[in-house]
Amino acid sequence: MPTLFHNLTLATMRSDDLGIITEGALVAENGRILWLGKESELPTQWQHLRATPAACVDGQGGFLTPALIDCHTHLVWGGSRANEFKQRLHGVDYQAIAAAGGGILATVRATREASEQALFESAKERAEALISQGVSCIEIKSGYGLSLDDELKQLRVARRLGEALPVRVVTTLLAAHALPPEYKDNADGYIDHICDTILPAAAAEGLADAVDVFCENIGFSRQQTERVFAAATALGLPVKLHAEQLSDQDGARLVAEYNGLSADHLEYLSEQGIAAMAGSGTVAVLLPGAYYFLRETKLPPIEQLRAAGVNMAIATDANPGTSPIMHLPLMMHMACTLFRFTPEEAWLGVTKHAAQALGLTDTGVLEEGMRADLALWQIHAPEDLCYELGINRLVQRWFAGA
Amino acid sequence: MPTLFHNLTLATMRSDDLGIITEGALVAENGRILWLGKESELPTQWQHLRATPAACVDGQGGFLTPALIDCHTHLVWGGSRANEFKQRLHGVDYQAIAAAGGGILATVRATREASEQALFESAKERAEALISQGVSCIEIKSGYGLSLDDELKQLRVARRLGEALPVRVVTTLLAAHALPPEYKDNADGYIDHICDTILPAAAAEGLADAVDVFCENIGFSRQQTERVFAAATALGLPVKLHAEQLSDQDGARLVAEYNGLSADHLEYLSEQGIAAMAGSGTVAVLLPGAYYFLRETKLPPIEQLRAAGVNMAIATDANPGTSPIMHLPLMMHMACTLFRFTPEEAWLGVTKHAAQALGLTDTGVLEEGMRADLALWQIHAPEDLCYELGINRLVQRWFAGA
Ligand SMILES: [Zn+2]
Ligand SMILES: [Zn+2]
Repeated sequence: MPTLFHNLTLATMRSDDLGIITEGALVAENGRILWLGKESELPTQWQHLRATPAACVDGQGGFLTPALIDCHTHLVWGGSRANEFKQRLHGVDYQAIAAAGGGILATVRATREASEQALFESAKERAEALISQGVSCIEIKSGYGLSLDDELKQLRVARRLGEALPVRVVTTLLAAHALPPEYKDNADGYIDHICDTILPAAAAEGLADAVDVFCENIGFSRQQTERVFAAATALGLPVKLHAEQLSDQDGARLVAEYNGLSADHLEYLSEQGIAAMAGSGTVAVLLPGAYYFLRETKLPPIEQLRAAGVNMAIATDANPGTSPIMHLPLMMHMACTLFRFTPEEAWLGVTKHAAQALGLTDTGVLEEGMRADLALWQIHAPEDLCYELGINRLVQRWFAGA
Repeated sequence: MPTLFHNLTLATMRSDDLGIITEGALVAENGRILWLGKESELPTQWQHLRATPAACVDGQGGFLTPALIDCHTHLVWGGSRANEFKQRLHGVDYQAIAAAGGGILATVRATREASEQALFESAKERAEALISQGVSCIEIKSGYGLSLDDELKQLRVARRLGEALPVRVVTTLLAAHALPPEYKDNADGYIDHICDTILPAAAAEGLADAVDVFCENIGFSRQQTERVFAAATALGLPVKLHAEQLSDQDGARLVAEYNGLSADHLEYLSEQGIAAMAGSGTVAVLLPGAYYFLRETKLPPIEQLRAAGVNMAIATDANPGTSPIMHLPLMMHMACTLFRFTPEEAWLGVTKHAAQALGLTDTGVLEEGMRADLALWQIHAPEDLCYELGINRLVQRWFAGA
C-alpha cells in the first residue's frame, strides 16, 4: 500500500531556491517516490489515503525534505584522542604529544588493535547519532588501518553498519591517508603497496565505492596521488581527494582531470583549481567542523566557487583528530555562520550536492522515481535549521520509505 | 528511603582538578546529598541499598557530576529572527534590516505582542532542550519587554517555567537591555522609569532575583548603569552586568564596586577590570556562543583572568539575536576550542562557578548537604564532553534527587 505525506511544505531541492512546494503532498510506495505536488492536485487514486491513518503521515505544517547525506566521514576508528585534546589545552605542544605516540598514529595503533566487533560498536553509536538528526546516507572512509588487513577491516565494518542500521553506507578506500610506521621514509613504497595490493583487494571484495588520497605536504605528493588515481581508474573506481586543506598542492586540478566526484576541504584552493572543478563537475566538499576545531582562519574561496558554478556540499568530516563531530545540522549552522553559506546552499550541501559528491543519482532530491529517503522537520522555514542550535527539530525520518 | 548511586566516578567539582573520586558512591535523601566518598567506605547503614534495585542507581562505570547550570540566558522571547539571519547571508546589510524593523526591536515587538501562554510554550521547548543535556538550573533575563507590563510578563513566564518543569529558574531583570521606542532619544528618561517603576514593581512581586544592565556604546552608559545598580542595591537585589562585549566601558570595575555577582561577555575587559573583579569575587561569565555567532575575533582575556584568580563561568546566552543556541555542552566545547579553556575550567564553568555567578550556595558541587542536582554521563573522562560533539552522553539527570 502506498503512503501519503500531506499537510506540509515540500522542499524538493530540485532548484537553487530549494524548489519549495507549499501545501504539498507526496506519495511513496515500495521505497520510491510515486508522486509529489500540491495537495490540491493529489490524483484521485490516492485521495482515499487521507482517511487511512496507517497509510497517511500528517506533517502538521512542517517541512518534508530529502533525508540528509553526510558525504565525508572517517566514522570507523579505534581509541579516543580526548586525552590528547586535554593535554594540548594544558599547554603540552604538538611535538611532545607526537613524540609520546599521539596524533594520527595513535588512532592507527588503536584501530589496528581493535577487533572488528569493537570498531563496529563504537561506529554504530556515531552513526546512530547522525541518523537521529535526519541522516539517511553516510560516506565512510578507511585510512586508520594503513595495512592490507586493517584497511579492509575498516571497510568491512563500514559495510556492516549499512547492513545493521537503516542507513546507506558509501565506502571510500583512503589507504593513502598517512604513512604507516612500516614504510617510514618510504612513501613511494607504500604507494606501491596501495596500488599493487590494497586497492585490488578492496576492489575484489567489493569493499570500496571510491578511492581517496590525502594530498598535502604532510600527506602524499601530487605525483603519488596521481599513481593512486591511475590505479583506481584502471579498476573502474571513481576518485576524490583531500585537497588544499593546509596548502595549495594543485590537487583540485588533478582530481578534476580524473573526473573526480569531489575535492574536499579546499581552504587553499586556487583559481585554476576552481576552473578545473567547474569544468569536470567535481563537487567542492567543505568541512566547517575541521575549520572550527582547528581554529583555521583561512576560509575556502566560497564566493569564487559560487561564481564559477561549482556545486558545494558540506559534511561532518567525523574523525578523532580534527573533527570529532557527529552532527550534520551543526555543520549547516557552521557553514552559514563561519563560511557565510546561504541557508539554501547549506540545505543543498547536505542533500542534492552531497548525493552528487558520492555519485548517487537516486537520492538527495524529492522527485518521482527517487528513493523515499525523507525527513520531516518541525520548522517554519528551511533557514530555521541553520539559525538555531540545540533543539532537535526532526519529527521523523524515513529510509527507503520505512 | 535514601538512594544509592554507585559503580561510578564522582567529579565533585570541589577543587580545580574537579575533585575526582574513582570507585565512588553517593547517597541522597529528600533531595539532598547525605554522603559521598569511595564505595569501599560506604557506611554500613546504607550497604543494604546495593541489594535494593528501587533505591540503587548503577552508574555502570560512568561519571556522576553536579547537574549543569546555564547562568546567562534570555530564554523567553517572542517571534523568530531566522529570516533576518537568512537575509544577511543573502547580502542585505544590517542598516537595511534595522530600517525595515529588524534587529532587537523586532524581538521586542514580537515579545510584547505574544501572550504569556505563547511565550511560555516557546520558552518551555528551549528549556526542555537544555534539560535534556543535563541542565538543572537556568538563569533567565527579561529585556525584550522594555515596559512595565511586558518586562513583568517575561519574568512571570520565567517563574512559571520553574514551576512547570523540573528545573530551577533564577530570574534577572534586564529592563536596561535596549531603549524602547517610547523613549527614543531619552535614555535617561527610560532609566528613571526603570528605577522608579519597573524595578520596584518587579521586586514587590518577587519576580527578580537580580538586576542586569547592557552597558555598551550601543546600550547604556556607565552613569546610567550606576543609577540602576544603586536602585537595585537599595531594594536589596544583587547586580550583574553585560560588560565590555564590544568596547571597554569600564563596566567590570563598576559591577565589582557593587559586589556584583558577575560581569558577562568581557571581550574588551581591561587589566583594571580584572583586578577589580578579583578583589570583589565577581565571576567572569564568558559566552562562546555569541563569540561564535557574531564571528568575533577579539578573545576575552582568559589567561589574565586565570592568572588573577577570577572564577570563570560559561553559558549559552540563549537569545534570538546573537546566540540562538540552547546547548550547554556545545558551549563547553566552544569554550575549549575557541577560548582555550581547559576541560576542567569548562566543567567548573557550568557547575561550581556558574552557581557562584547566580549567588547559589546549595548546588553546583557534590558535597554533603548540597542539593541532589545530579547528572550521570556515559563518558570515560570529563574531557570527553568537551572534545566530542553530536552524541548526547547524558544517561540521566536528577533534580533535587528526583
Ligand atoms: Zn577527511
Ligand atoms: Zn546576554
